Amino acid sequence: MQKITYLDKPVYIESFSAVGGLEESRGPLGDKFDLIDEKDLFGMKTWERAEGEMSRLALNIALNKNKLSPDDLDILVAGDLQNQCVASSGGLFTFGIPFLGLYGACSTCTEGLLVLTAMLTASKNYSRGASVTSSHNCAAERQFRTPIEYGAQRTPTSQWTATAAGAFILGKEKSDIKITSFMPGRVIDGYVKDQSNMGSAMALAAYDSIAAYFSENDPSRFDLILTGDLGSVGSSILEEMLCEKLGENGRTISSLHKDAGLLLYDLKNQDMHAGGSGCGCSASVLSSLILPKVKSGEYKRIALLSTGALMSTGSVGQGDHILGVAPLIVIEGEDL
Amino acid sequence: MQKITYLDKPVYIESFSAVGGLEESRGPLGDKFDLIDEKDLFGMKTWERAEGEMSRLALNIALNKNKLSPDDLDILVAGDLQNQCVASSGGLFTFGIPFLGLYGACSTCTEGLLVLTAMLTASKNYSRGASVTSSHNCAAERQFRTPIEYGAQRTPTSQWTATAAGAFILGKEKSDIKITSFMPGRVIDGYVKDQSNMGSAMALAAYDSIAAYFSENDPSRFDLILTGDLGSVGSSILEEMLCEKLGENGRTISSLHKDAGLLLYDLKNQDMHAGGSGCGCSASVLSSLILPKVKSGEYKRIALLSTGALMSTGSVGQGDHILGVAPLIVIEGEDL
Repeated sequence: MQKITYLDKPVYIESFSAVGGLEESRGPLGDKFDLIDEKDLFGMKTWERAEGEMSRLALNIALNKNKLSPDDLDILVAGDLQNQCVASSGGLFTFGIPFLGLYGACSTCTEGLLVLTAMLTASKNYSRGASVTSSHNCAAERQFRTPIEYGAQRTPTSQWTATAAGAFILGKEKSDIKITSFMPGRVIDGYVKDQSNMGSAMALAAYDSIAAYFSENDPSRFDLILTGDLGSVGSSILEEMLCEKLGENGRTISSLHKDAGLLLYDLKNQDMHAGGSGCGCSASVLSSLILPKVKSGEYKRIALLSTGALMSTGSVGQGDHILGVAPLIVIEGEDL
Repeated sequence: MQKITYLDKPVYIESFSAVGGLEESRGPLGDKFDLIDEKDLFGMKTWERAEGEMSRLALNIALNKNKLSPDDLDILVAGDLQNQCVASSGGLFTFGIPFLGLYGACSTCTEGLLVLTAMLTASKNYSRGASVTSSHNCAAERQFRTPIEYGAQRTPTSQWTATAAGAFILGKEKSDIKITSFMPGRVIDGYVKDQSNMGSAMALAAYDSIAAYFSENDPSRFDLILTGDLGSVGSSILEEMLCEKLGENGRTISSLHKDAGLLLYDLKNQDMHAGGSGCGCSASVLSSLILPKVKSGEYKRIALLSTGALMSTGSVGQGDHILGVAPLIVIEGEDL
């Protein structure tokens, strides 16, 4: 059985930022990003280093928004999609903040917020920390599939790895957005071997976490249930499962469900196939679109489940199934 | 400044296990492992799947030692060296335990115990969880360097990635070993670009964490300060730095220092060059050699710093420095 942690003392989201590239600027959230580089290189010579630099810029912007310095942060958690998560360690080590590296594939945004919340709660003398997550389309494509220069044909179920990073500064002092509960989620066999069909692989994990959380929580108290990057294929699988298996509750959840991978791009006019994906997808949608709406009071309570497909080119090559995971956190507005 | 978390309520190590391969069985700790497969394959067809199976076996053994079932665990944290940490997710998902994936390279054993301690402390309704870490020599060699079948010449500074896994079950009920404090450690530039000289790259991070922790703690209260896998090269750099920079305290720490990479193998008679390494190195040394000595009272208080070299073949290929990280936890015997 999955246990949900309801925090006696919430942890507050003090500051957040979104950094993105060309396609992200062309999407409906383009003008909500804090920084865009239409060259996708952020001044670096390789896509891989560009991703690390995006992470660095995102954290810098989040710090500056709240007039904080790196010394004000007691702990930094971060992750990305590159082998051995080198974008996070390489991009962020110059801040000199105590560091925990995470790997949750595209679920890392929620996993990071969850682990950071736990670290702040567990440690009396921590007052503030940051979670940073990134992905880069060109770095991911050449690592997981083929370099984009090859111009490989993409299948209709494939998703577009976002070139984006999001940074979130959390603390114990009261502010207008708070994290009130969390649940890590189980690793679920997605019964899919096609790395161009990640949405299907992750839909079962999203369903598993949603079913567990809402077995003891009323979905009608929520304004939004946001998954990370199921895209159009995974979202329709999830919504069908919810309606079929969870009755009235499932239909309520389904009506409240949106997917960050379907919010980041204009799917009609951008060539994204089944939608956006990547660690940076839910991170940048959360900070550019969702948290401002929590801050303004438009959303009073939301559940966030970034979704991760746990696989490597090696595991797919050896015929392993793609596994999914969907950690969940609840974010609420604070009446100040 | 790095903040140390001293726990009001310690978290207890209830059960632990070590699984290893041929070279591990030949080393001085061989007869202390719970399970050895001299074929290194653990019944699987590939080295990569063998690593996942090692993780599964290690957790199963740790559960059985304490007559626990997977349902008794509220949370599982795990990590390994394979791209996208697929050994951990692939090997452990069948347990169905809520999961957090970590990436701290060879520091993952300590990082996992640290994050698990924080999760148990932060969540009132978690009573018990597990941390599992693994590495496999043949999977690591063909991923990071060359397949072992090529018979490439190894340099004198190179280390031997352990084929080993360790599992640790932690809980809140009093038992005879406890974790009392932790400090995540910063990511430190190792100023090394040679992936066959990891010990040097990690020595600076180990020094950074040790200097921070013992700036406010008396090393003479410790019986052992165990690093993860600095090997002979990194250990001598660390000990020289300690003696030169930290005066009397540094000499005390140096005299208490041992390295798991120098304990796992018989360096005179096994062809390991500078010593053992890998996520499984410190994990298996901790569970086979060290924790039994804490349990018996031979060690009253130890500091564990598994050391991680944060790099990928891509980052090394692009000329990036290898970064180091050394999270620290303190383990003590409990007078029952």
